[in-house]
Formats: sequence, C-alpha cells, structure tokens
Amino acid sequence: MLKQCRSLLSRSLKSAKWGDGFESRAAFSTSLQDFAATGNANGRVFAPYTIYKGKASVSISPVLPTFVKMDSDIGGLKVNRRGSMMLTFCPAIGERKYDWEQRQKFALSPTEVGSLISMGAHDASEFYHDPSMQSSNAGQVSKKLCIKAFDGGNGYMISLTVTNNVLKSNENFNVPVTTAEFAVLKTAFSFALPHIMGWDWLTNQSPKGIKGSPSKVNPKQHFDLEWDR
Amino acid sequence: MLKQCRSLLSRSLKSAKWGDGFESRAAFSTSLQDFAATGNANGRVFAPYTIYKGKASVSISPVLPTFVKMDSDIGGLKVNRRGSMMLTFCPAIGERKYDWEQRQKFALSPTEVGSLISMGAHDASEFYHDPSMQSSNAGQVSKKLCIKAFDGGNGYMISLTVTNNVLKSNENFNVPVTTAEFAVLKTAFSFALPHIMGWDWLTNQSPKGIKGSPSKVNPKQHFDLEWDR
Amino acid sequence: MLKQCRSLLSRSLKSAKWGDGFESRAAFSTSLQDFAATGNANGRVFAPYTIYKGKASVSISPVLPTFVKMDSDIGGLKVNRRGSMMLTFCPAIGERKYDWEQRQKFALSPTEVGSLISMGAHDASEFYHDPSMQSSNAGQVSKKLCIKAFDGGNGYMISLTVTNNVLKSNENFNVPVTTAEFAVLKTAFSFALPHIMGWDWLTNQSPKGIKGSPSKVNPKQHFDLEWDR
Amino acid sequence: MLKQCRSLLSRSLKSAKWGDGFESRAAFSTSLQDFAATGNANGRVFAPYTIYKGKASVSISPVLPTFVKMDSDIGGLKVNRRGSMMLTFCPAIGERKYDWEQRQKFALSPTEVGSLISMGAHDASEFYHDPSMQSSNAGQVSKKLCIKAFDGGNGYMISLTVTNNVLKSNENFNVPVTTAEFAVLKTAFSFALPHIMGWDWLTNQSPKGIKGSPSKVNPKQHFDLEWDR
Repeated sequence: MLKQCRSLLSRSLKSAKWGDGFESRAAFSTSLQDFAATGNANGRVFAPYTIYKGKASVSISPVLPTFVKMDSDIGGLKVNRRGSMMLTFCPAIGERKYDWEQRQKFALSPTEVGSLISMGAHDASEFYHDPSMQSSNAGQVSKKLCIKAFDGGNGYMISLTVTNNVLKSNENFNVPVTTAEFAVLKTAFSFALPHIMGWDWLTNQSPKGIKGSPSKVNPKQHFDLEWDR
Repeated sequence: MLKQCRSLLSRSLKSAKWGDGFESRAAFSTSLQDFAATGNANGRVFAPYTIYKGKASVSISPVLPTFVKMDSDIGGLKVNRRGSMMLTFCPAIGERKYDWEQRQKFALSPTEVGSLISMGAHDASEFYHDPSMQSSNAGQVSKKLCIKAFDGGNGYMISLTVTNNVLKSNENFNVPVTTAEFAVLKTAFSFALPHIMGWDWLTNQSPKGIKGSPSKVNPKQHFDLEWDR
Repeated sequence: MLKQCRSLLSRSLKSAKWGDGFESRAAFSTSLQDFAATGNANGRVFAPYTIYKGKASVSISPVLPTFVKMDSDIGGLKVNRRGSMMLTFCPAIGERKYDWEQRQKFALSPTEVGSLISMGAHDASEFYHDPSMQSSNAGQVSKKLCIKAFDGGNGYMISLTVTNNVLKSNENFNVPVTTAEFAVLKTAFSFALPHIMGWDWLTNQSPKGIKGSPSKVNPKQHFDLEWDR
Repeated sequence: MLKQCRSLLSRSLKSAKWGDGFESRAAFSTSLQDFAATGNANGRVFAPYTIYKGKASVSISPVLPTFVKMDSDIGGLKVNRRGSMMLTFCPAIGERKYDWEQRQKFALSPTEVGSLISMGAHDASEFYHDPSMQSSNAGQVSKKLCIKAFDGGNGYMISLTVTNNVLKSNENFNVPVTTAEFAVLKTAFSFALPHIMGWDWLTNQSPKGIKGSPSKVNPKQHFDLEWDR
C-alpha cells in the first residue's frame, strides 16, 4: 500500500487520495453482519477529506449508523450502532510520503463532533478512548485525541497519541491545521452530524408513502400528543 | 420496559437505546387518522439523541408534520399538524437505570426551537404548555421547560416540571448538558427545523415531475407575481 | 375567505393556517406557461411559516425557481425565473382575525435573503420594489419592506408599506417579531436559499445517472479545467 | 456570445443569465472521459449566482466531483477529481454589458472555500493558482484571487489578476460585493461544500438498499471498529 500512496502522491497532489484504503474495514470485513444504510445500493463511495502535513496526515470520513429491524409488530428500523466521524492518521516517512500500514484511527462520537464544532479560536478539546473498555483488557491500550488552538488563534494542532501498555509502545501523530482547513471540518461536520445521528431519515420528501384519504381528525387528539402517557 | 432498559444499558452504553419506545405514540395509536409523510414507505426509523445524566435522561427526536389533501380542484397537500421536536424525560432509578414508565414529554414548536438555537452562552429560556388549553380542563395540568445557562457559561441545565393540580403531584426532571451536547442539539435542531416546518418538500430535485415543452413566457408575468392581488 | 380564516383561527391557533391561499397564484394561474420543479409530481405542498401579531400577520413561504430547457444540442435546464422568499401580509380586523382579501405580497430575492440572514441584533434593512419597473407605469406603485431591530436588541419590527400614487392610497403592515421567531426565519431562510437559487440540483445522490466504464483519464485535462478559455 | 449577453441583460436584469455559457466546458468537451454524478439523468442544470458591477461581473457555480469505479472486488466509487466552486469573471464593456469572450475562471478548492466562509468582516484572503504547476510551463501564467474586506466592514472587493508572462499580458477584474451578497456566498458555499467534497453521498435516505435479516451481532466487534488495525 505504501507504494501505491507514493505513486498517487507523485501523480497529483490535488486529486483525492487513499480513498480506497480508509474504509477497507467496512469493505473487507465479513464478520460484521449488520447492515449499513449506505444510501446507494450499487456500492460504497469513498470521499475522505485529507490534510497532508510534514509529519503526518489525517483523513476524515463520516461513518453512517447501522440499523436493525425492530422485533415489534409495527415494523420500523432502529439505530443499532451509532455513526461516527472517523479520523485516520498516517505518519510521514519522507517528503510527501505517508505510511498507510502504520495508520491509527479515532472515531468521534456525535457528542465529540459537537465539542469540535463548538470550539472557539482559542479553545482546546481532549478525548480519551479505550478500545477494551468494559472488558478484562481495559487499560491495555489507550488513545488520546487532542485539538488545541495555536496561541495566535490562526489554526489548531490535532494530535493523536496511542499508548500500548502491553507492547510498551507509544505512537504520536501531529497535524497542524489552518483556520481554513478547520472551517472545512466545522462545515462538513455540521453537515454530517445529522447523518451520523441517523436523523436524515426524517424527511418529508417521499410523497409516495402517502396513501388513502384521511378521515376527519379530532383536533384534540393532536393537541394531546405530548400528553399521551 | 424497565427491565429492557437495564439490559440494553448493561450491554453497551455506546449504542442507541430506547428508540423502540420513544415513538410508540405514533406506532400504536390507531385513532390518529391523518397521515405522516415519513419519508420511507417501509416503516419508521427511530434514532433519538439521548443524554443520560445522574438524575434523569432526556431523549430528543424530531416529529414530522402531517399533511392533508386539499379540497380544492387543484390538488396538493397542506400541513395539518405542525411538526415538533419531542423531548422525553425519564427519571433515574439507580446507577445507569432510567424508568421509562415514568417518562414525561414536551414538544417544542418551531418557534420554541428557534428560541433554543438562538440562545447564547449565558441565556435562559422558559416554555409553558397546558395540555388542556382551550378546554374546560385548562389549568389542571401544566408543564414548564426551562433551559438555563450555567454561571460559568460551560453548559446548560434543562429542567422539566410537570404540575398536576388534580392529583396534587409535581414531577421534576433535571438534566445538565455540556457545551458539546448543546452544540449537538443546536446543529441537529437547525437541521431538523425546516423538516418539522414542512419546508423540505420545497426542492428542485425531482426532475421527473417536469414534462412538456414550455411555450414562450411573457417576462412581464413573472415580474408581476408579487403584485397579483 | 375571511370567513374561513376565522373558523380556522378559532379551531386552533397552533395548526398551520391559510396554506391554501398563499400559493394561489401558482395554483390558479393558467397563463403562466413555464413550469416549476416542485419536487413532487402529485401536487403542491403548502407549509408557510406564519407569525400572527396584534395589527397584522406575515406568512412566509419559499418560491422555487422555474427552469426552461436549453435550445442547445446538449440539453439541460437553465433557470428561467429565480426563486424568492414570498412574504404575505394580512391586516388584523379583530381579535385573531386577519383579512386575506387585503393581503399584500413582497418577494425577497436571493440577495435580499442574504441581507436578512446577515443582520445583527441591532441592524436594519430596507428593500424597495416597483412592480412596474422598466415600464411606462414605473413609479405608480411602490413597496417598501423595512426590517429594523428594536432598541433593546430583543427582536425586530417587520413593516411593509405599499404606496399607490394613482389611487392615492397607502397601506401599512407592522409585525413585531421576537428573537426566537427571527431565529426561525434565519435558519429557514438559510436552508431555503440554495433551493431558491436552484443550487439543490447540484447533488451527487443519483448514482443511477452513472453509466459506462470510464476510460483512462488524462490528469492534465483535469488540472486545466480552470484554464479552458 | 456577447450579443446574447446584451439581449438577455436588456430583457430583464432580474432573471438568471448566462447559465448556458458558464458550464460549456463540461457540456462541449468530448475529451473528458470520466463522468460526473450530476444528480439528474436528463441533463445538466445551470443556475449560477451572478454579481454584476460597474467594471466586471462574477458568476459562481459549484462543480461536482467526478467518480471512478474502484478496481477492487468490492466495487464502489471513489473521487477521481475533486469538486470546486467555479468563479467566472467577465469585464464590463459598456453600461450593463459584459464580454463573455474575455472571461477568466478561478476554481476554489474545498479548503479555499473553507477559507472564504471563515472570513470575518475585516479579513482578507489570497489564493494563487498556476495552471502549469508541476509541468515545464510552470510560471508562465499565474492567477491571483484576492478577497479583501472594505475598511468600513461593509463588504468586500473580489479581485482576479491573470498574468501571462509569455504574452506579457495582465488582466484585472474587480467586483465589489455588499455584505448581503457576501452572505449569499457564505450560505451557498456552506451548503455546497459537502457536495463538492462528495460527502452528500453519505446519506441514510435510500432504505431500498436494505435487505435481508441481520443475524445476531457481536457487540464487541462494533466497539472495536476504531481499532481494526
């Protein structure tokens, strides 16, 4: 994969890169048996937003929630796994060369996305994840994502630290982002947030679902919806 | 239902919970004879955003407007019942246990949603609802929703008080929300507002509806549209 | 129509009202021979946002642009008439009674919408329209819409003045709006703006339109797109 | 084309203009063999937002990304060429006459769009493009786009300078934009940004893509998605 990254990078710095790798988890995993509502039946679309800097790159892609059918008589779908905003870091191993094999991921939850999009020009946020939380391996590996404004207010440092207490290893990724790049993140995250929450289902745009002739409606019933307990 | 909540909670705090209950009103009610444009013909989607805190939880879900066919010759649909943002509160009855049976709801209107999304870091909003407004039972039960910024500007207290003057009961739900959680609410509410207003019908994205060959158009007619009275 | 307004109002102040009238222009006009891409083939949807105050009401609804087929060999559609944000004012003629027959309209252009959504808590905007602009009747009738923040910064006065120099008449509509109502306008206008500009066509969401197998692409060509003159 | 511009302009300054020309690149080019997901199978839609001022006009239209099928077994699409926000400048050659033949283009990348939408009322941004970057002709032609706030904070000057070192030519386009026009740009750019990034594919709105009955899901697998390396 490293070889491929090089050739892609040398071809054009302006074209989208690595899209074929960042979502390989979803693509190649066969053990994952629930389904994602990907929005198009013909396959997946890979359109990460990637920021390449001197020591590392970070590539960002929304991950949609998955749904399961409800057991009840009424049918319907409910969220099975929440969506997230996936950040994938790669270390630089030369000028404009990034090593995909050494990538590390960090999945922002909707609330963590809310934290990021509400950051001011002088704020900082830190998030801690433990992949083995609530298991006997808790504490073996920990990840910390830190987003910290530069003193001058002209951008942010995004840092990922992955500590493996078993292997005694510690990996660091530092990607400085400009105000413009952060504005892209804020705008794109705000756009994506309702989608990773699963709220984009809530639309009136499929009138085909409307059938029949509504009978007279008791206005009182409507008014009482809030009080139905 | 309480039992179910427990098992869900113990399984994973990260997955979406209670989605199967929060919309049961729409699902089980058979007396409600108008129809909702749910956006998907195969059933409902349950994707509430829930905030769990020590004394209570609040789960938030948009409710789409319903439409009725117009009687006129020209056809078309008009809004019959406005959409809302439904807040459902449950009291905590133990560590990470919330009692669905004691839930209370509060439905924010579009204008109340507007009030919430325009709140600054030091503002407060209060909304009063009377389920029996304009009936002989007016004043028997009243609900007050209060959203108040913490003194430090680092979040808000969302409180629901339900007073029943007949039963002489008074219920209180207090859910402190962080700045990050409130940012999720603001972003998700801003996304959902046009949908609960019914404005998401107004889209150009169905070119299949365009047919025939437009004849010559009198530009004056266009210009005068504002003046057609 | 007045009668209908009364009965609707007395039934419930909370339900959407008057939707059947506000778009009657589009509905009843048969001389208008271009077509609107209404987004649903089965008819129109009426979902105005209406603010009722003591002396007048204002009801707001987006109007989509219309498109015409292009004459060229390549097909495609171009905007024929721009969309707008239609404001319809009705005077109050009693407690919670508004006279639809005396309504006056004002259509905000996309740039005027931009002006409104960029207003701060202490700003004012004025727009002047002349329905007979560029004709021999220019100056006979003029309309002025004024949006002015209250001194306290806690809302705005929206005023429409229609002056008819032929009939020597002068009509005034004043609707005070709260900060919450203005937040609804800002959010809904921001949502609607790309739609009335016709930009909501520009979406990647119809993969069915993708066919065939792309041949090798000369990267240079892509890079030069900006330079094709 | 100039003739057409004149007649269009004389007919109505309020209708959308020039839409048939601004995207001619995509329309007439036959050498461009990749495909755009235009979102409607029946053809293209031309809906530029144009600002006409005394010395020049600027017309703005989003350009969607193009996608290619992935070679892998899993199918799917990846971004082949990123989308952009295309600015097309025309010089004024008389009162309300603009010369389409002398147009110059500048394509804002997603990050440059982020820079623009994060500009405050007193900020300035500059972007430099070289159409021959990374080729032997690098430096022959250069383009500079400058967006600079007026001292009073009541608008911006948008300037494009095209320098051709071979022809020893230098072209300048200056378009002053009001605060209202810039608000339209900010709102429309924020709307369009996820689309030109290709993120609008990421939607849950096609439930038809969901099939089959999900088997039992191992919750641990979900939790570990972030850790799949």
